[in-house]
Amino acid sequence: MPKVVARPERRELLVRVTWDLIVAEGLDRVTLRRVASAAGFANGALKPYFATKSDLLNAAYTMAFDHTIARAEQSIGTRSGLEALRRLCWEVMPLDEERRIEARVVIAFWEAAVADPSISAVARSTVTDFARSIARHLDEARALQEIGPLDDPAVVDEILWILMGLQSMVWVVPEETGTQRQCAVLERVLATLPPAQTLAADVSPEAVAGR
Amino acid sequence: MPKVVARPERRELLVRVTWDLIVAEGLDRVTLRRVASAAGFANGALKPYFATKSDLLNAAYTMAFDHTIARAEQSIGTRSGLEALRRLCWEVMPLDEERRIEARVVIAFWEAAVADPSISAVARSTVTDFARSIARHLDEARALQEIGPLDDPAVVDEILWILMGLQSMVWVVPEETGTQRQCAVLERVLATLPPAQTLAADVSPEAVAGR
Repeated sequence: MPKVVARPERRELLVRVTWDLIVAEGLDRVTLRRVASAAGFANGALKPYFATKSDLLNAAYTMAFDHTIARAEQSIGTRSGLEALRRLCWEVMPLDEERRIEARVVIAFWEAAVADPSISAVARSTVTDFARSIARHLDEARALQEIGPLDDPAVVDEILWILMGLQSMVWVVPEETGTQRQCAVLERVLATLPPAQTLAADVSPEAVAGR
Repeated sequence: MPKVVARPERRELLVRVTWDLIVAEGLDRVTLRRVASAAGFANGALKPYFATKSDLLNAAYTMAFDHTIARAEQSIGTRSGLEALRRLCWEVMPLDEERRIEARVVIAFWEAAVADPSISAVARSTVTDFARSIARHLDEARALQEIGPLDDPAVVDEILWILMGLQSMVWVVPEETGTQRQCAVLERVLATLPPAQTLAADVSPEAVAGR
């Protein structure tokens, strides 16, 4: 019997087929059997790639997450601070069809993750990574004097929760989550960050009056 | 054959059993057959109450939403403006076990809603209702001069998306979404609303310098 070789491009094809099934019919209808059939594989031929539905969902989510991170890294380049934060957020925000589909995979994945410990570890680590990236870019922004001291860790939670809420809202109320509204909320949050403390002359009313 | 009477308390029992199944095993494992069995009903006895899984999920979500709104109305009483907004948000935020379970039903419901038009209409109308309540309390706050003119509709989106993001985050990263952190984010957003314009003397540097 020939050894079955798990080729990366076949694995990616199966993940793509899984995405399509989630988008078209929802998580409930995803089974290894249906993915095999839709990909033109014999039933059982998925086993070298994915032993269980959990494996398949982990791969589907991980590919969506990896795509997001790869786009963000390319967009950020050597930038840091607020501009890097903005570009990171843009890649997570469902601003175009590609990112809307990633958001759809995320909705399915949260549902699966809560019910399945072998999935929840992946979900938890990607969310934690993402929160850490937000915090790092805010630290850079402070070091660059783009913003003032930020003694409020709530900003990281706030940005994270907005972006996670958008993943479902873009599917539940698409007409209320257009590109402009998504960007307006991000810019509003960035505008509420504390201004950098300048070392310029004191321009308080008292100081000015006493001149 | 005796006519089957759909008694409200039985219906509520079935919805409660559905909640328990979602919390314990996830949406995937909810079937009319399993709900009937867990509730001690004969298979098929659910039909007078719920003809399909979609009906059951609509009822499960609607009951969670109705509980949230009832608690908010009781908590708000005759209050209006920012304090009413705060109390509305508190009832949606997963701050205790009851509201965490409602959040779990919401996660399952988003997944189901995106895949099923008979569910998505309910999802859409509850989200729209909720956004309208946020906007109304902000209007009250402006009328009460608690805040200044708010020409930025992004605030409503921002609050909504934060609360919706929290529904999944409290289950995906529970240790990162404690009560204090949830409240800190809400208070941060409220603190960034524009201050009321006072009718007091002009204290701009120019005015003070010219005195």
